[in-house]
Amino acid sequence: MASTLIRGGTVVNADAAVRADVLIRDGVVAALGAGTDDWSADHVVDAEGMLVMPGGIDAHTHLEYPVDGFTTRTADDFHSGTVAAAHGGTTTVLDFVKKEPERSLLDTYRSRRDVAAAKSVIDFGLHAIVPPREQQPDVLDDLRKLAGEGATSWKFFMAYPGTQMVDDGELLEGFELALEHGVLPMVHAENGHMIARETQRLLADGRTAEVFHATAHGHDAEAEAVHRAVVLAESVGTPLYVVHVSSAAAAEEISRARAAGARVWGETCPQYLAVAYEDYADLGEKAAAYLCSPPIRERGNQEGLWRSLVTGAMSTVATDHAGFCLHQPEDLPPQKLRSPGYFPKVPNGVPGIEDRLMVLWETGVASGRFDACRFVDLVSTRPAKLFGMFPHKGAVAVGADADLLVWDPAADHVISAAGSHMRTDYNLYEGMRVTGRPVRVFSRGEQLVGPDGSFDGAAGRGRFLTRGKPQLH
Amino acid sequence: MASTLIRGGTVVNADAAVRADVLIRDGVVAALGAGTDDWSADHVVDAEGMLVMPGGIDAHTHLEYPVDGFTTRTADDFHSGTVAAAHGGTTTVLDFVKKEPERSLLDTYRSRRDVAAAKSVIDFGLHAIVPPREQQPDVLDDLRKLAGEGATSWKFFMAYPGTQMVDDGELLEGFELALEHGVLPMVHAENGHMIARETQRLLADGRTAEVFHATAHGHDAEAEAVHRAVVLAESVGTPLYVVHVSSAAAAEEISRARAAGARVWGETCPQYLAVAYEDYADLGEKAAAYLCSPPIRERGNQEGLWRSLVTGAMSTVATDHAGFCLHQPEDLPPQKLRSPGYFPKVPNGVPGIEDRLMVLWETGVASGRFDACRFVDLVSTRPAKLFGMFPHKGAVAVGADADLLVWDPAADHVISAAGSHMRTDYNLYEGMRVTGRPVRVFSRGEQLVGPDGSFDGAAGRGRFLTRGKPQLH
Amino acid sequence: MASTLIRGGTVVNADAAVRADVLIRDGVVAALGAGTDDWSADHVVDAEGMLVMPGGIDAHTHLEYPVDGFTTRTADDFHSGTVAAAHGGTTTVLDFVKKEPERSLLDTYRSRRDVAAAKSVIDFGLHAIVPPREQQPDVLDDLRKLAGEGATSWKFFMAYPGTQMVDDGELLEGFELALEHGVLPMVHAENGHMIARETQRLLADGRTAEVFHATAHGHDAEAEAVHRAVVLAESVGTPLYVVHVSSAAAAEEISRARAAGARVWGETCPQYLAVAYEDYADLGEKAAAYLCSPPIRERGNQEGLWRSLVTGAMSTVATDHAGFCLHQPEDLPPQKLRSPGYFPKVPNGVPGIEDRLMVLWETGVASGRFDACRFVDLVSTRPAKLFGMFPHKGAVAVGADADLLVWDPAADHVISAAGSHMRTDYNLYEGMRVTGRPVRVFSRGEQLVGPDGSFDGAAGRGRFLTRGKPQLH
Amino acid sequence: MASTLIRGGTVVNADAAVRADVLIRDGVVAALGAGTDDWSADHVVDAEGMLVMPGGIDAHTHLEYPVDGFTTRTADDFHSGTVAAAHGGTTTVLDFVKKEPERSLLDTYRSRRDVAAAKSVIDFGLHAIVPPREQQPDVLDDLRKLAGEGATSWKFFMAYPGTQMVDDGELLEGFELALEHGVLPMVHAENGHMIARETQRLLADGRTAEVFHATAHGHDAEAEAVHRAVVLAESVGTPLYVVHVSSAAAAEEISRARAAGARVWGETCPQYLAVAYEDYADLGEKAAAYLCSPPIRERGNQEGLWRSLVTGAMSTVATDHAGFCLHQPEDLPPQKLRSPGYFPKVPNGVPGIEDRLMVLWETGVASGRFDACRFVDLVSTRPAKLFGMFPHKGAVAVGADADLLVWDPAADHVISAAGSHMRTDYNLYEGMRVTGRPVRVFSRGEQLVGPDGSFDGAAGRGRFLTRGKPQLH
Repeated sequence: MASTLIRGGTVVNADAAVRADVLIRDGVVAALGAGTDDWSADHVVDAEGMLVMPGGIDAHTHLEYPVDGFTTRTADDFHSGTVAAAHGGTTTVLDFVKKEPERSLLDTYRSRRDVAAAKSVIDFGLHAIVPPREQQPDVLDDLRKLAGEGATSWKFFMAYPGTQMVDDGELLEGFELALEHGVLPMVHAENGHMIARETQRLLADGRTAEVFHATAHGHDAEAEAVHRAVVLAESVGTPLYVVHVSSAAAAEEISRARAAGARVWGETCPQYLAVAYEDYADLGEKAAAYLCSPPIRERGNQEGLWRSLVTGAMSTVATDHAGFCLHQPEDLPPQKLRSPGYFPKVPNGVPGIEDRLMVLWETGVASGRFDACRFVDLVSTRPAKLFGMFPHKGAVAVGADADLLVWDPAADHVISAAGSHMRTDYNLYEGMRVTGRPVRVFSRGEQLVGPDGSFDGAAGRGRFLTRGKPQLH
Repeated sequence: MASTLIRGGTVVNADAAVRADVLIRDGVVAALGAGTDDWSADHVVDAEGMLVMPGGIDAHTHLEYPVDGFTTRTADDFHSGTVAAAHGGTTTVLDFVKKEPERSLLDTYRSRRDVAAAKSVIDFGLHAIVPPREQQPDVLDDLRKLAGEGATSWKFFMAYPGTQMVDDGELLEGFELALEHGVLPMVHAENGHMIARETQRLLADGRTAEVFHATAHGHDAEAEAVHRAVVLAESVGTPLYVVHVSSAAAAEEISRARAAGARVWGETCPQYLAVAYEDYADLGEKAAAYLCSPPIRERGNQEGLWRSLVTGAMSTVATDHAGFCLHQPEDLPPQKLRSPGYFPKVPNGVPGIEDRLMVLWETGVASGRFDACRFVDLVSTRPAKLFGMFPHKGAVAVGADADLLVWDPAADHVISAAGSHMRTDYNLYEGMRVTGRPVRVFSRGEQLVGPDGSFDGAAGRGRFLTRGKPQLH
Repeated sequence: MASTLIRGGTVVNADAAVRADVLIRDGVVAALGAGTDDWSADHVVDAEGMLVMPGGIDAHTHLEYPVDGFTTRTADDFHSGTVAAAHGGTTTVLDFVKKEPERSLLDTYRSRRDVAAAKSVIDFGLHAIVPPREQQPDVLDDLRKLAGEGATSWKFFMAYPGTQMVDDGELLEGFELALEHGVLPMVHAENGHMIARETQRLLADGRTAEVFHATAHGHDAEAEAVHRAVVLAESVGTPLYVVHVSSAAAAEEISRARAAGARVWGETCPQYLAVAYEDYADLGEKAAAYLCSPPIRERGNQEGLWRSLVTGAMSTVATDHAGFCLHQPEDLPPQKLRSPGYFPKVPNGVPGIEDRLMVLWETGVASGRFDACRFVDLVSTRPAKLFGMFPHKGAVAVGADADLLVWDPAADHVISAAGSHMRTDYNLYEGMRVTGRPVRVFSRGEQLVGPDGSFDGAAGRGRFLTRGKPQLH
Repeated sequence: MASTLIRGGTVVNADAAVRADVLIRDGVVAALGAGTDDWSADHVVDAEGMLVMPGGIDAHTHLEYPVDGFTTRTADDFHSGTVAAAHGGTTTVLDFVKKEPERSLLDTYRSRRDVAAAKSVIDFGLHAIVPPREQQPDVLDDLRKLAGEGATSWKFFMAYPGTQMVDDGELLEGFELALEHGVLPMVHAENGHMIARETQRLLADGRTAEVFHATAHGHDAEAEAVHRAVVLAESVGTPLYVVHVSSAAAAEEISRARAAGARVWGETCPQYLAVAYEDYADLGEKAAAYLCSPPIRERGNQEGLWRSLVTGAMSTVATDHAGFCLHQPEDLPPQKLRSPGYFPKVPNGVPGIEDRLMVLWETGVASGRFDACRFVDLVSTRPAKLFGMFPHKGAVAVGADADLLVWDPAADHVISAAGSHMRTDYNLYEGMRVTGRPVRVFSRGEQLVGPDGSFDGAAGRGRFLTRGKPQLH
């Protein structure tokens, strides 16, 4: 395999940024050095003025994902989705497996793994979603096997009663099994009963418009669920990962728990940091474009969420990417607008897999909230550790996979749906001018994206990651 | 200058531990690599089974320091102290300058810098202590100059009314100046009035024995001062460093402030983590050996202090090394025992400059509280950042000073006064069996300590560090 | 009806203690005065040196209550139970109605009301217990009617999954209905799933002895449920009453919620304040005598619980009286000991209806924790307000029912099972010497208990209280 | 002395509101009763539809008080001030004694007491202000005597360095002495150094306008001082009273401390609840009318302050009445406008002694925040208890002084400077329409104010109150 030398850049890891040249051999980082005139390689990349960072890891995506009777595939499948990811500087995605109605969780998992492996252009892993017991009484057996097959993270829903929600008893049982098998439990933390009740009240009042989705999903419902999940996890003794924290009140619960010694980590998403309720409150049915769960909240909420990232109370930034189109060709069923004016029918989810790093750099680093090291930690190092991939992924380090970005911190780029590789027909950050951008993207030493935007990577080159135990330190 | 290749070890930085060989050239780390058969060096060190870590940075020492009319020199001066430090794996010390009565702060600083430079075997820096205004009305001018001469950290005493204590007005003024000059303010956070009052009450009750020193220095006095210092620093907008946090209640104040977004960092010391009040409560006048301020507290206090290290609420571990002997030759004045049975006269301070890394490894890493990365962060990386020395110091990184330890994580060593290089005639950790220990210590590429305990480093080879601004991320 | 003048005592209300004579006419307090030589009455009681207080209100009793297949009646029924209550200075009890299997909640309520009315010697009211929806699908209709029939307080179980536990959806629905009808919702706050899980784990480990009941019911399970109940109540906008708070951690949740403005009130019981786990940990199967839910906790827990009473974080002290005998005659089924060595089968509940005031006076007032006014508030005024009976009950005030105690603050009495009027064959406070005791007890102006311990009150003289809305200020 | 019977009203005390007639004899409440047809009195007052409440106690006034070189007398002296108080329903005032430059504290106290006794129309007491030690080295001797002469409350300033501020050492010493003598220490809690520093910065920036007074007195300065005062008081073991809490952040400190068991009570004032920074921010030099310390804060601050009253975290509402005129006749020195455009020279203080009850009733009770009982507690009962006057003052109770209000809860009154009896030429509540108002005001059984607004009470009829120890329960 060809060797590459990236010369003259500043290598940014979670703990330090230093001038160093990076030598790639056999798909891994072979050496880091200064004054490397005596080093040679098949390719030499000039990175003068650039940052060299580990590729982004998006720990929360939903590609070709079944939602309410149709799938996100009509927007992004594992090929288009991972191509878009790569363009945005993400070289690893962790997606989810939800048990299909006629299949066991394990069968669904294996099948989905194979589908993804055939299409993906970057490495990927899969989290397993633990279904309510009644949907598969013997699911614990499957979970044990899944841990052995690399699904070392399981997600539990505290929302969506009647479909995906599990009760506290199931959470406890699942947490115990996770602890036993070195698996990191993840929770979608919203109190499903509170949301159901509020939804019922809104509908009864005729408040059915898209925007009331946000009203139905209260801050209190999210904060309560976080609090409870932490108590349950602590009672079992397991660490815990809270996905897509949207409310500053929920982040505050995590902050308090961590300060008290709880081993809990929070993830938030760019849409909660850089978009606000006010951005869609007056859009009528077009507000559907912004609907996801938990919802995109009030502008006043953002400050607390940012603080939780700055203080370290929260640990990762992922996308929860689940793309649906506003408009579809006539021969395809409508997605976001399939039932205009009635929020319960809007498919939940927003796109972002390509935008994540650029948006977070702009709003986090360029705006002075934190430095490039913290950025790397949030988008790459910490997810790699928590999801059992470190240090193969998540660091520019000797021996690590050469999943690398050459990042231009002085780029001048405008985000738009038209200019992106995601298939959705809108972009939450339309028109945002960003100053940081990946100009080269390497996956295991192969350059996927070049400075001219060219892409070179076959479908199926991405490898399934048999992940290990979480690294919690 | 000769080159060295450390081969086969696991390089431990604050964010990652990876197998890598380390090439040292011209006193700095020239390269890190794997499969380095084609690399050559003057010396090759076999580090198989060993960890390679950045040298320890002790951000809080008092070598040949004037205390109450005599100096610590009769125990450790800059030569013996830095030799001991090196043996323990510490390759940088930050000491203090306290204005001498007949000299300006600036003059004292320059003079002390020269004294230390002539004796020190490792690199060192100096924090300036800001005296009460009345002791030097024009001290602000000196402070401005000190910032330019590399003293980018200034310490303020909230204790010792009448000698070193400054009031809130002086703190605010000093904090503003620090902010203006990119200097990190440090506080000794104990409410001096509370301690004075309690001391007076104890003495009035005839409770004068050594052990009452701990009673006089209440947890509340420490926690209050931390709280106040944070409020003052926040009002000015400056970051803040709290030295030698001893009370879990004080650590809790830091934790709460950080969670609320305050930029405050806490330092604790091995004596607060691994020694307890109960260890000296019954020793009579020998308890003097354990007297320092804040005091070594109850065993029940340790858990909270450990938690603050584990959760990240506190950030560094230094020694506050200030060695005094229990017994002195007849021709020298007594130190710890100069006024037996009367705690106000016992010189405050305990030794530890040589023990720090071994004790923290044993009680922190070997005991499973945190991993080697966090250890490196606490004893080296974080102090390097906060005190403006990173990444020259504090990391095994390309371009960094080759201040390196080859650390044996499977050593079997017993700490004792007899076996140490500090001059004090007792050791707080006497008899502690430790499993981690530096077997080689490099300072700027030169091996000071070898596997057989041999030492090779001339007095005066240590360089004064003109430090830059704190790196707060 | 005969008039009575209580002369020379100190009238103690929740806000003040003043010297005043009390004139009773027609069963109510007609006047309070000083220098009342011109007042006359049929009976004149000399209360010199005595306190005159409103009669105690026990807001939480279970008389002749069905528990696990048998009832508490074999210990205390509405006659023996209210006689015992009166001897202890309690002149009102609020008991519970639990829907019987073959009957609607409303029918059970009416039937139980009539049973109690026929036997009770003091006034009484009934709280309704809201069953899981599946047990009575149309229970909301019954609840609406119950509010109109004086059951203005409804209890929900967050524990006992499969029998009485309701889920968050049912809580929300019930809370909304309560709000609409001016009803105060009450919760038994323990997370039933956590307890079930822990119980399962203990049994699997063979830890089945009585004492493990306390292990099964963790502090965290109680604190979590309190937290959640408050969030749910706040989301609905209803006030909330938490029964039998046993854990200081749970009390802390209430304290925090109240400080943040939540309208939540907590009740604790004498057994949690004056008895401890250590008292029964070594008793073997006799520990069954102490088993109740939540459990009697560690001695170290008491301090926090007391603090919550002293600070006002908690508001009432009731008994949760549910008497079961240790030993029964041969022709009766065993109660506490029906399945020795197997804690899940021990009927939960402890006696105390007669002891409450004496125990709380001794441990609260005589010990200096609070004064007589606070005592009156805790045992009488606050429950009267919260449960819609004030100021008819709960105060020595013009126009109020003359439910009065002449309380001797300098009595010398020893509590014992033998000396009490409860039917249980043991007493939690056996041997406790108390200095405060009711020497006369009046119910609506009639003296039930006299200084010699004589009792004069016919079964059925007690009246059912059609209670109004809670008074929350 | 003539007897009076107030018939048909609802008697409101802190714990209950009941229909009762009130018989006054010899200046005290002789009896409370219902159906009192057989009672007779010299005067019978019809109170049908009215509330009968204990007279207001204003625990914080500054009448004819020396401030910065002139006194408030040119506005209100002890005669005009107490006449105004009485019209507003306040029947007791507690004023302050500040040591005069040429006199000892004790001498000043006695002299001021005599001056007030000669002019006051209602009963009054005096708090002593503890001067910095340097102003009177032997002040502790005076304080001891003052405790014996009825000044059982001492105020300490944490603000105003150089004039009235005492340091933590003096606070501790004073608190200890207070504890020893059963005296309640009071603190003006603002960190004087922080304010001085901020003032200096504002002046240096040319921001000297009246409105910057509020900027100079930060929330943090107040909250910090409250926190510190509580720590110091707790360390000594004394209860503590915090005067004029203005910041929700400071109230939050009190709330937290109380929840943790600290015996601390907070006082706030109508101007902080019903007036806001926004009301004067644009008034230019007329903003001087609103200047007091701590300052009247942002509207957003009010909610938290109200919550602290509603939850019970704060305990009393007083005025801090210190009246200065905007405009003075030519022959008198200007007051509020003596140095227009320069905030440090504006005399601090606002009027309100007459408005307090009406404003708090309107904004607290009529607006539904709390009920009449809580109102009575805040304005009368609690101050009576804390300042050693209960139950002689602060309750409508048998034996208590007949300081009574007949309060019309359905009045329709508009507050104005023109319609008030205070001498200041403006009113903070100008134009506020209030629905509650005293229609009769009795002081020790004598009607001072009648329904037609007539006033009957000679200067000097008010008695000096030799107060006892605080009642803390």
